[in-house]
Amino acid sequence: MTLNLGVIGTGMIGQDHIRRITQVLSGADVVAVTDADIEVARRVAADLKNATVHQSGQDLVADPAVDAVLVCSSGPSHEEYVLAAIAASKPVFCEKPMATTTEACRTIIESEVAHGSRLVQVGFMRRYDAAYRALKQVIDDGGVGAPLLYYSGHRNPSVPESYTKDMAIVDTAVHDFDVTRWLLGEEFAAVRVIAAKPNSLGGELLDPLLIVLETASGVLVNVETSVNIRYGYDIRGEVVGETGTAALADRGPVILRSAHQVGVAVPQDWRERFIAAYDTEIQEWINDVSSGRGATGPSAWDGYAAQVVCDAGVAALASGERVPITLVDRPGLYA
Amino acid sequence: MTLNLGVIGTGMIGQDHIRRITQVLSGADVVAVTDADIEVARRVAADLKNATVHQSGQDLVADPAVDAVLVCSSGPSHEEYVLAAIAASKPVFCEKPMATTTEACRTIIESEVAHGSRLVQVGFMRRYDAAYRALKQVIDDGGVGAPLLYYSGHRNPSVPESYTKDMAIVDTAVHDFDVTRWLLGEEFAAVRVIAAKPNSLGGELLDPLLIVLETASGVLVNVETSVNIRYGYDIRGEVVGETGTAALADRGPVILRSAHQVGVAVPQDWRERFIAAYDTEIQEWINDVSSGRGATGPSAWDGYAAQVVCDAGVAALASGERVPITLVDRPGLYA
Amino acid sequence: MTLNLGVIGTGMIGQDHIRRITQVLSGADVVAVTDADIEVARRVAADLKNATVHQSGQDLVADPAVDAVLVCSSGPSHEEYVLAAIAASKPVFCEKPMATTTEACRTIIESEVAHGSRLVQVGFMRRYDAAYRALKQVIDDGGVGAPLLYYSGHRNPSVPESYTKDMAIVDTAVHDFDVTRWLLGEEFAAVRVIAAKPNSLGGELLDPLLIVLETASGVLVNVETSVNIRYGYDIRGEVVGETGTAALADRGPVILRSAHQVGVAVPQDWRERFIAAYDTEIQEWINDVSSGRGATGPSAWDGYAAQVVCDAGVAALASGERVPITLVDRPGLYA
Amino acid sequence: MTLNLGVIGTGMIGQDHIRRITQVLSGADVVAVTDADIEVARRVAADLKNATVHQSGQDLVADPAVDAVLVCSSGPSHEEYVLAAIAASKPVFCEKPMATTTEACRTIIESEVAHGSRLVQVGFMRRYDAAYRALKQVIDDGGVGAPLLYYSGHRNPSVPESYTKDMAIVDTAVHDFDVTRWLLGEEFAAVRVIAAKPNSLGGELLDPLLIVLETASGVLVNVETSVNIRYGYDIRGEVVGETGTAALADRGPVILRSAHQVGVAVPQDWRERFIAAYDTEIQEWINDVSSGRGATGPSAWDGYAAQVVCDAGVAALASGERVPITLVDRPGLYA
Repeated sequence: MTLNLGVIGTGMIGQDHIRRITQVLSGADVVAVTDADIEVARRVAADLKNATVHQSGQDLVADPAVDAVLVCSSGPSHEEYVLAAIAASKPVFCEKPMATTTEACRTIIESEVAHGSRLVQVGFMRRYDAAYRALKQVIDDGGVGAPLLYYSGHRNPSVPESYTKDMAIVDTAVHDFDVTRWLLGEEFAAVRVIAAKPNSLGGELLDPLLIVLETASGVLVNVETSVNIRYGYDIRGEVVGETGTAALADRGPVILRSAHQVGVAVPQDWRERFIAAYDTEIQEWINDVSSGRGATGPSAWDGYAAQVVCDAGVAALASGERVPITLVDRPGLYA
Repeated sequence: MTLNLGVIGTGMIGQDHIRRITQVLSGADVVAVTDADIEVARRVAADLKNATVHQSGQDLVADPAVDAVLVCSSGPSHEEYVLAAIAASKPVFCEKPMATTTEACRTIIESEVAHGSRLVQVGFMRRYDAAYRALKQVIDDGGVGAPLLYYSGHRNPSVPESYTKDMAIVDTAVHDFDVTRWLLGEEFAAVRVIAAKPNSLGGELLDPLLIVLETASGVLVNVETSVNIRYGYDIRGEVVGETGTAALADRGPVILRSAHQVGVAVPQDWRERFIAAYDTEIQEWINDVSSGRGATGPSAWDGYAAQVVCDAGVAALASGERVPITLVDRPGLYA
Repeated sequence: MTLNLGVIGTGMIGQDHIRRITQVLSGADVVAVTDADIEVARRVAADLKNATVHQSGQDLVADPAVDAVLVCSSGPSHEEYVLAAIAASKPVFCEKPMATTTEACRTIIESEVAHGSRLVQVGFMRRYDAAYRALKQVIDDGGVGAPLLYYSGHRNPSVPESYTKDMAIVDTAVHDFDVTRWLLGEEFAAVRVIAAKPNSLGGELLDPLLIVLETASGVLVNVETSVNIRYGYDIRGEVVGETGTAALADRGPVILRSAHQVGVAVPQDWRERFIAAYDTEIQEWINDVSSGRGATGPSAWDGYAAQVVCDAGVAALASGERVPITLVDRPGLYA
Repeated sequence: MTLNLGVIGTGMIGQDHIRRITQVLSGADVVAVTDADIEVARRVAADLKNATVHQSGQDLVADPAVDAVLVCSSGPSHEEYVLAAIAASKPVFCEKPMATTTEACRTIIESEVAHGSRLVQVGFMRRYDAAYRALKQVIDDGGVGAPLLYYSGHRNPSVPESYTKDMAIVDTAVHDFDVTRWLLGEEFAAVRVIAAKPNSLGGELLDPLLIVLETASGVLVNVETSVNIRYGYDIRGEVVGETGTAALADRGPVILRSAHQVGVAVPQDWRERFIAAYDTEIQEWINDVSSGRGATGPSAWDGYAAQVVCDAGVAALASGERVPITLVDRPGLYA
């Protein structure tokens, strides 16, 4: 009853998923791989027990030995492979973004709705982080009353040269957008982007940004992206409710008293911070797919909604104005 | 060498200052009091060793036994007494607001500038809080690099029936405006006010509010006022710099492990939170005035600047727009 | 290359290990089970894909389909099954205690030494806890200088009626003994046990106890057992070094501000606290055994040393005296 | 109604008390000083408004202008001045130790009992620290149930060359002894001292020490003295009760996130840690004495009890044995 997986894209994240599927998690194996650079795929396959190397993602999807597909290729190629998997009625886990345009996201939704059941899951791993889950539990249990405000802090020590202005929204804050939608259980209605005094360590970037969103019910969401802040990879979150607040705690496991300071370590990068969330994400997906109940994690609708918010955010950054966010009607499949 | 003080206004805050001057602090005595309700003044004087009761603030200011004046009367009366003290060349400590209109603030400034040296100090006590001072020290020492963002959270368990919509700005956030100007060492340039989903415990109020300010150099300042949040009186502050952040710590002195929780107490009200700051504020003022070097704390300029920001904030709350903040040229006296 | 495991003892802990091997971890399967109550073993096997039910532990060990053995039966039966596994040259993971007498532990050591390589691993799961590992890293990196003192707090909300006086040492503190030996990298040389004022919630038990141990190099180790403390399952640890200290941090993932308190949750029981450690423990054992390098975790020597400390602790509790701890020479196999 | 004080001993601590009495606190003045080095007393007096310099402590006590006396001279001289003050029926605040022998302490008690009301207060300032007071409040309110264990950590960055072996007990841990007696409201019954592996930074000292005390009711008290621990001046305390624990919190006012760490500062020395406690201690003493109700702080009995515990501790350190602690009957004056 092992789930046989095919992996499209064997770069950094693809290799990492292969490692966890074959060495950490239970119930699945990797039986097929492919990559835009076929030599990379071959090298990765060489370390696996018996994985076929396919010339293309379509070939991989068509391989009858492949029960389900992971899409870990470059963003612009996601749409094509997700659609291929839907066409083949195979479950597909797609790293974010699901697609790079709103139109493509809608095409995927329409295709999946036509299929009639959920095949697509999008890689928003924060929903699988133990701390975010505990935070959602507090909210859902009414521990702080109805949520009114949410602060989301997304801090990176640094970003590569290739990081462009809009990436603070479409690559960085997109995680905050998704996890906030999930925590609050509602959609965004509008967004403003306000640039702070720029960090001199960030070159020409507008960094940090304050992204101020409003949800449908009026909750204000304040996303800070600080992507050159040096001190650590620090993901902050605090929901302000009617009677109290709940926040993600610092995570360092050891309190060090040394040199006139007492404190804990801050994670150095996203791997350290979210490695357990990735494990949980993929294990639950394997379990869901193996059981036949289909994906229960972030859906094509979530991928679409995140994309719409990103588009609005980019427009708001360019214009300095408040930009409304409008979604199509939500199909019953995603109710 | 005891400094003989006259207190105008012997209500709650006036009585509290009289208590600390006569029972807690060093180097001053209360020799004269007055109040809009003269019977209250008489009762307060009865508990003092030898305090004269005056029929009016002007009489008190004119009393040759009075070296310096504390104005603790109702806000609209502040202007008159401050001007009287300046006219008499007597140091005056005025509870906030210094005056209730920008015009009045400018009149006070002009009067003090004409006098030629500082006589006026305004009661922004947060600058005397040990935690804020430690925070300013970290900023000034470059411990987090140049400040880019500042979060200021002003949370009250509840507010009285008499609390009106604008008071979130002119009565509550005014403290955040002043302490941020002081922490960052610069003026505000613009303000937006964005209302969150209203707290149902706050009746018709727009509560919480996010007040987003920009300083002259571009630092973004995000003031949250949550005035019905029940859980405690909680003053938060975090400066986000180029290389790190520094925040006000929780203050509970005892870590309790009980009933599956570990944590500390949150203050219940502003007295508990700031009582030591009030003591330091008045002691330093006594010391400054006694030494002849004059007031070194929040100046008439600070009172004026806070008032201008409040006016802009009220306008921004009404309009929903970004409102620029413009100050007159700063006189050399306040350099 | 799946590792085929046989599980002796399918009670609570046995079932939990079967769950993690078959549903959570990678690289192993359960192919054989047995239990003192054979009906229980049958029911457990019914939920597995193809597990043989054996009439006895010896039969299970002898089953050629079984690559390695987990011993999860009652403590007094451990010795027999561990010896059987060694005799069969099969790797064996044995829940603590390895055996219930020092003599039995020595027999196991002698048997394994005669075999010539490590087959036995003992279930001291704390060594696999992320926080303890981070603590050991700090010590080994010299982050607090040479260790001089270690505080180990072992707090349980309550214990069952069957919990007897000596169990505070042999059942509870034994975990502290093992993890401290591992953290400090040395053996204990003496132990005193001092009973505190008894907790009225603990009936006739001597609870809490302070167990004061000395290591070979003179480090003092202070183990507190508080097994009726109600507030939570709280495992504390702080090493005091020459230049600083390092301690296990509280673990609650969410900071809740509510009802005049700010804090995080304390775990409710040992499952919540150590579930991830159990996963890591068994996964690493699977990996070690599958790779052919043999067990690298707590050895038969560790099982023996823990037993000797427990014996000395029980004697010290009875006598009120300082009891020396003497070990046989450590065989080279355990260097 | 100013309380006129005479200060015997104008070294470091004497000067510090003079500073706080004349510049910080309310209701008292310094009108007389003396010192073993009369030139030092003259220099100190030169900075005061009108303080008489006396040739001896006896002369100072006899001065009719002196309402009450502070004894800040070297320890061995305390007895003589305290007895002189009692003979003159003048309130006397004596820095610890009240006297350097148990016999001397008993003489003082007898003298004060003969006088018939409390004149003596001993300078155990921790009882005036806000955190210790909050801790006592939690205990007294039953917040953790009946106390069973108390951990007291007394950590100094370093000690001077002149620090001898016994000083860890009579000079350092004596504060822990007193504050624990006060927190728990009972006397000690026995003490053991166990030396840990010595800190190589402490030369020939036995450091750290674990001092394990038993109270009359059976509470175990575990005092750690670590006087060369470099990282800071860190005073720890945790009471373990039947249902929970309460501990002194870390005190740093600013949470710094920098260089992969998040934390707060640890105090650097005892002045920083206890400066506010000293202020409160002396202010409350001034208020008590001025009001005529006499001293309410640590009494001659407390000074005596601390001395007896120190003697037993020194004996226990020398012998390695458990040493019983026996006090004379407590006179009704100290009920």
